[in-house]
Amino acid sequence: MGTQERLLTITRHIKTDVVKKENFRERSDYKYFLPIQTRWSDNDQYGHINNSIYYHYFDTVINQYLIKHCGLEPNNNDKPIGLVVSSSANFYAPASYPSVIDAGLCISKVGKSSVTYRVGLFVKDQSLACVVGGFTHVFVDSVNRRPVHSLPNTFIKALQPILAD
Amino acid sequence: MGTQERLLTITRHIKTDVVKKENFRERSDYKYFLPIQTRWSDNDQYGHINNSIYYHYFDTVINQYLIKHCGLEPNNNDKPIGLVVSSSANFYAPASYPSVIDAGLCISKVGKSSVTYRVGLFVKDQSLACVVGGFTHVFVDSVNRRPVHSLPNTFIKALQPILAD
Amino acid sequence: MGTQERLLTITRHIKTDVVKKENFRERSDYKYFLPIQTRWSDNDQYGHINNSIYYHYFDTVINQYLIKHCGLEPNNNDKPIGLVVSSSANFYAPASYPSVIDAGLCISKVGKSSVTYRVGLFVKDQSLACVVGGFTHVFVDSVNRRPVHSLPNTFIKALQPILAD
Amino acid sequence: MGTQERLLTITRHIKTDVVKKENFRERSDYKYFLPIQTRWSDNDQYGHINNSIYYHYFDTVINQYLIKHCGLEPNNNDKPIGLVVSSSANFYAPASYPSVIDAGLCISKVGKSSVTYRVGLFVKDQSLACVVGGFTHVFVDSVNRRPVHSLPNTFIKALQPILAD
Repeated sequence: MGTQERLLTITRHIKTDVVKKENFRERSDYKYFLPIQTRWSDNDQYGHINNSIYYHYFDTVINQYLIKHCGLEPNNNDKPIGLVVSSSANFYAPASYPSVIDAGLCISKVGKSSVTYRVGLFVKDQSLACVVGGFTHVFVDSVNRRPVHSLPNTFIKALQPILAD
Repeated sequence: MGTQERLLTITRHIKTDVVKKENFRERSDYKYFLPIQTRWSDNDQYGHINNSIYYHYFDTVINQYLIKHCGLEPNNNDKPIGLVVSSSANFYAPASYPSVIDAGLCISKVGKSSVTYRVGLFVKDQSLACVVGGFTHVFVDSVNRRPVHSLPNTFIKALQPILAD
Repeated sequence: MGTQERLLTITRHIKTDVVKKENFRERSDYKYFLPIQTRWSDNDQYGHINNSIYYHYFDTVINQYLIKHCGLEPNNNDKPIGLVVSSSANFYAPASYPSVIDAGLCISKVGKSSVTYRVGLFVKDQSLACVVGGFTHVFVDSVNRRPVHSLPNTFIKALQPILAD
Repeated sequence: MGTQERLLTITRHIKTDVVKKENFRERSDYKYFLPIQTRWSDNDQYGHINNSIYYHYFDTVINQYLIKHCGLEPNNNDKPIGLVVSSSANFYAPASYPSVIDAGLCISKVGKSSVTYRVGLFVKDQSLACVVGGFTHVFVDSVNRRPVHSLPNTFIKALQPILAD
């Protein structure tokens, strides 16, 4: 049995009992998708994508949405920026280079100055997420780094279409 | 006010209310330490260490302990390997390159085939962790990737000295 | 002037004199392309993609071609693997997240046991490469790590279509 | 023969003929050293440090020296910043996590607005560099990104002690 096949068996043996709707593993649980090309160095010495790398994917889909759709400007000192205050992930199945990962995004909570995102990562053509996680941004003034009193209206408006059901 | 000073103010404004003993932010909460040199590319465009990078530090101190003290051999097919099934982190204060981070480690739970680690990351000379997190390994046969029935005795023995109080 | 605009001016001031055909900066200099989604953490604190990251892109397009088209199997001990013995790059213009980079590949030399690749990286919709570089692989037995006496025929055959003109 | 031993044999078979003084592989070829803790994710699926990662080490020792000794302030818009215009490396022997790499630095050329660095990477307790490489920085105004007319005097002064012999 080849390494790739062996890697794939882990799903069946470790995690089948937790494959439930409430784990947000369906593509329909997400509202926005960004395809991410995996990289050679994403694979660790076990031949699959290293657990830390998935957090880079979270960052990538979230900030891409914020920049393209919400007006985030990371290098503009006059605009608020989002700092991550907590993050987490569950790893259900391995993925590996070479492949493309569809990163699905939805918003699970919007606070006064914070936004909590949920991300599901899907290997191309697979229906169940191999990884589900996310993080919470607190938006702060980019100069004094104090939390904003409220999120910009344009920002809140652009988050509406990707709010979780 | 310089960027570094501004970065440091975030602690005071966002997170002072959560600086409690139960957050495992003291050096005395950890049993083993590995100094990790931060890298230029660890800083993101906000001038501080990117949130995902801290998970690389978790991986680094945990596997270093397992290899040096517990007999983990990642490339030996006859030995079990640890696969991460979940991870999380809280970010209390920023850190940045250039600096050395002391990665503190302790074991918060040992199961039949799993180990849960807690990691606290301390900027050199600071007494409170800037980041606290960790993950859970399930140990599997490196070939068929099924969970082991029990952790090796030498392994369990070497985890004892770093069990959390 | 915004940061992105400022970043773009570097091309005009530092490198316009070296924008020549022989620098392999045209898309027509390459035979195979892989689009690579840039990541949040690819940008360093200067707001553009860190120089080291481009080498990760080189690795990504080269090994993806080798795996998909030449029969490279990184985890199969019975097959040769490619070890990088030298690499280099010239940086002509900045690129930044969020964007997609088209990684162009061609083969500049095939030796007895080695292959030298040239890679040009193009920001989507731009005609000139922002980075041109590459590396040399020596193919070795994956177990004893000695250079192979000759590259597999299937391998050589699959490299033909992407040989540089 | 274990994987680590096999990895080590590559030196003997591929590169013994190039182990010469002029390759800058001796510790005495360098003037400044920074120890860098390798990370779990530095190892790729061949169980050794990925070639791209060494460029991150170059960046780390060079910018650390510039910040600590030359007055580089990456986030201060009133000070020049260094942009990499070319880089290269030769890989003589593998290294792997877990280990500490001593990154040796010297300056091989100082121009009107540019500095060329040579870096040798040494596994702890080894006398020959496993990797030798470096890059050229062009120093530019951090706002308009045009090359400076001359490097700051304090800067030039701090480079003197690490000029190559």
